Amino acid sequence: MIATAALEPRLLLGPGPSPVSRRVLEALARPTIGHLDDQFLAIMDDASRRLRRLFGADEDALVFAMSGTGSLAQEASLANLVEPGDAVVVGVNGVFGSRLAEMAERMGGRVIRVEAPWGRIVDPGAVIDAVRKEPGARLVALVHAETSTGVRQPLAEVGAYLRERETLFVADTVTSLGGIPVDFAANHLDVAYSGAQKCLGVPPGLAPIAFSAKALTRIKGRTKPPQSWYMDAGLLAGYVGPLSSRRYHHTAPINMTYALHESLLAIEEEGYAARFARHAEVGGRLQRELVERGWRLFAEEGRRLPQLTAAELPPGRAEEPLRKTLLSDYGIEVGGGLGPGAGKMWRIGMMGSGATRENADRLLAAIDVLFA
Amino acid sequence: MIATAALEPRLLLGPGPSPVSRRVLEALARPTIGHLDDQFLAIMDDASRRLRRLFGADEDALVFAMSGTGSLAQEASLANLVEPGDAVVVGVNGVFGSRLAEMAERMGGRVIRVEAPWGRIVDPGAVIDAVRKEPGARLVALVHAETSTGVRQPLAEVGAYLRERETLFVADTVTSLGGIPVDFAANHLDVAYSGAQKCLGVPPGLAPIAFSAKALTRIKGRTKPPQSWYMDAGLLAGYVGPLSSRRYHHTAPINMTYALHESLLAIEEEGYAARFARHAEVGGRLQRELVERGWRLFAEEGRRLPQLTAAELPPGRAEEPLRKTLLSDYGIEVGGGLGPGAGKMWRIGMMGSGATRENADRLLAAIDVLFA
Repeated sequence: MIATAALEPRLLLGPGPSPVSRRVLEALARPTIGHLDDQFLAIMDDASRRLRRLFGADEDALVFAMSGTGSLAQEASLANLVEPGDAVVVGVNGVFGSRLAEMAERMGGRVIRVEAPWGRIVDPGAVIDAVRKEPGARLVALVHAETSTGVRQPLAEVGAYLRERETLFVADTVTSLGGIPVDFAANHLDVAYSGAQKCLGVPPGLAPIAFSAKALTRIKGRTKPPQSWYMDAGLLAGYVGPLSSRRYHHTAPINMTYALHESLLAIEEEGYAARFARHAEVGGRLQRELVERGWRLFAEEGRRLPQLTAAELPPGRAEEPLRKTLLSDYGIEVGGGLGPGAGKMWRIGMMGSGATRENADRLLAAIDVLFA
Repeated sequence: MIATAALEPRLLLGPGPSPVSRRVLEALARPTIGHLDDQFLAIMDDASRRLRRLFGADEDALVFAMSGTGSLAQEASLANLVEPGDAVVVGVNGVFGSRLAEMAERMGGRVIRVEAPWGRIVDPGAVIDAVRKEPGARLVALVHAETSTGVRQPLAEVGAYLRERETLFVADTVTSLGGIPVDFAANHLDVAYSGAQKCLGVPPGLAPIAFSAKALTRIKGRTKPPQSWYMDAGLLAGYVGPLSSRRYHHTAPINMTYALHESLLAIEEEGYAARFARHAEVGGRLQRELVERGWRLFAEEGRRLPQLTAAELPPGRAEEPLRKTLLSDYGIEVGGGLGPGAGKMWRIGMMGSGATRENADRLLAAIDVLFA
């Protein structure tokens, strides 16, 4: 008999999901009410307002949580903007950039890849050059926090360049939102999307997304509606937000929205500055401690995410058996490597409520025994 | 301050979400673990096995819960099968048939609508005639339980006709799964999709879906992959199911899967026959009681869903103020009408754990006061 009551709890220090606090789990389990009930709409709107602040988006942006995981919002970010034949510039230096390129190709985009080795940023100058050569490009997409490598992509330079141009700017902020500043408006982003289960500390199943006024104008100007009805931002806008007509589109994930709302309350209680500082301090310290133990950080110096550390094990160590023992004997989950890091790397998350010195110490103590 | 702790609970007797039992809410709030954790995979697989039984699908069908709401699975059912230019026969007698047609058109399908007045079934003979005229049709889509009208669509005749043909058979079972038999294999269905928040009694956010072996063969034989990466059944099959390679696709909604699993345990404890009989008895009685009070049932006689009753109020009654008072003063949610039923109809759900004589009596007692 398989029963959730018998689950052994885990300390989630992988690339996501991150630990969910008792407070958020309690909110998750509140009684379900209707998706058109004023009580629910008030909670959803309040969550959207707080998401807007956390993204750093202007008042004229459309911000809400999509009913699916981060991958849904990733696809939606492109599906609403791209029409067949559009040139799409995608920075590719890891799994999630590759996926953006694949998604854009599936919807008929003509993808121009700006590549960089895994572990390095995509050169902003090379991205700008690509747009110079393709001035009619529909959008540029970059991964702000590349979960496969731990690289933190700078956004400001590309944003400043695109600001006065037709080309839109899309950023994958799945692993950044709530852990480091996204600065949606300051970076001149037009679409950013995220996931609930990373630095927000909510179970997976909701995907925050923000569309700038410029993106919304583009969506209104499409020659045909998006291929996807479920992801259509125009239809979704008819349901979300206090100024909408509350037109039924789909049934919002009520209880997941409770959980998201609660996590956003907790984030504002802590304060953005304190939260970002906590992630920076805990992640930075973990990285120094790993280096001292002979691990090699995969992301280039100065471009490392504090909340997601990709690190190669000391030479001669097989990662999978050690990772499995860490889970079975210590109850700690970390992730394995992807792509060129497969088989030799761990990906360690210090995200949301999991980003504490105590958790890092618990992991390091286990590593000290396992690797002794 | 908006807080989920301050929510006034509701008795959910609308078209969904339905009441979520304490047991399911408790499962929902279990500690989050990883989406590649063997403990989680065992729960997901067990849920999929139980979904397969509840759909009545064969062992060679691919059955799982998609990470989104029923509308996502609705779109996915088409997105995996339809290529641009394909002829698609859609039965349209309410909101959800219309939506199927719109979705198929957005993805480039050439839609042949077989229409019927709202409140009546789509004539199986007319559907078969449409396929006779268009023998290369990619699929036929019918809504088994039309939530906008309360109509129960027969499936067997069309299924038997399509069985030996290339044309695939898709059914919307959002409001039927768990309330009335779907009989996936017996009806020769190739795709059926549902939602968590109707007769399964789970909060919204997951969408069960089943693909027959015939559908999977068609998906493998596509000339191009589906436009949607998120909905791609081939990619999803690499993660779900004990025979898959557990290849990472997206992060499954862990806690929602706990809740679905728990609801499926409860459904099997009750027994399918007892559960379907309970829905039939409670819904049938409610319908008789409403007719006695001067309400007019919208669905044609003999084709009524027990779990979803669309009924026109007695003449001269304005539905919206009465529905709002029912919510504010009695804490009972019912739904308003859609399409031709807007402004004159209520849609009343007796679904999942909400389908009890006590709940029906509570509603009828409130109606007796409100309409006195």
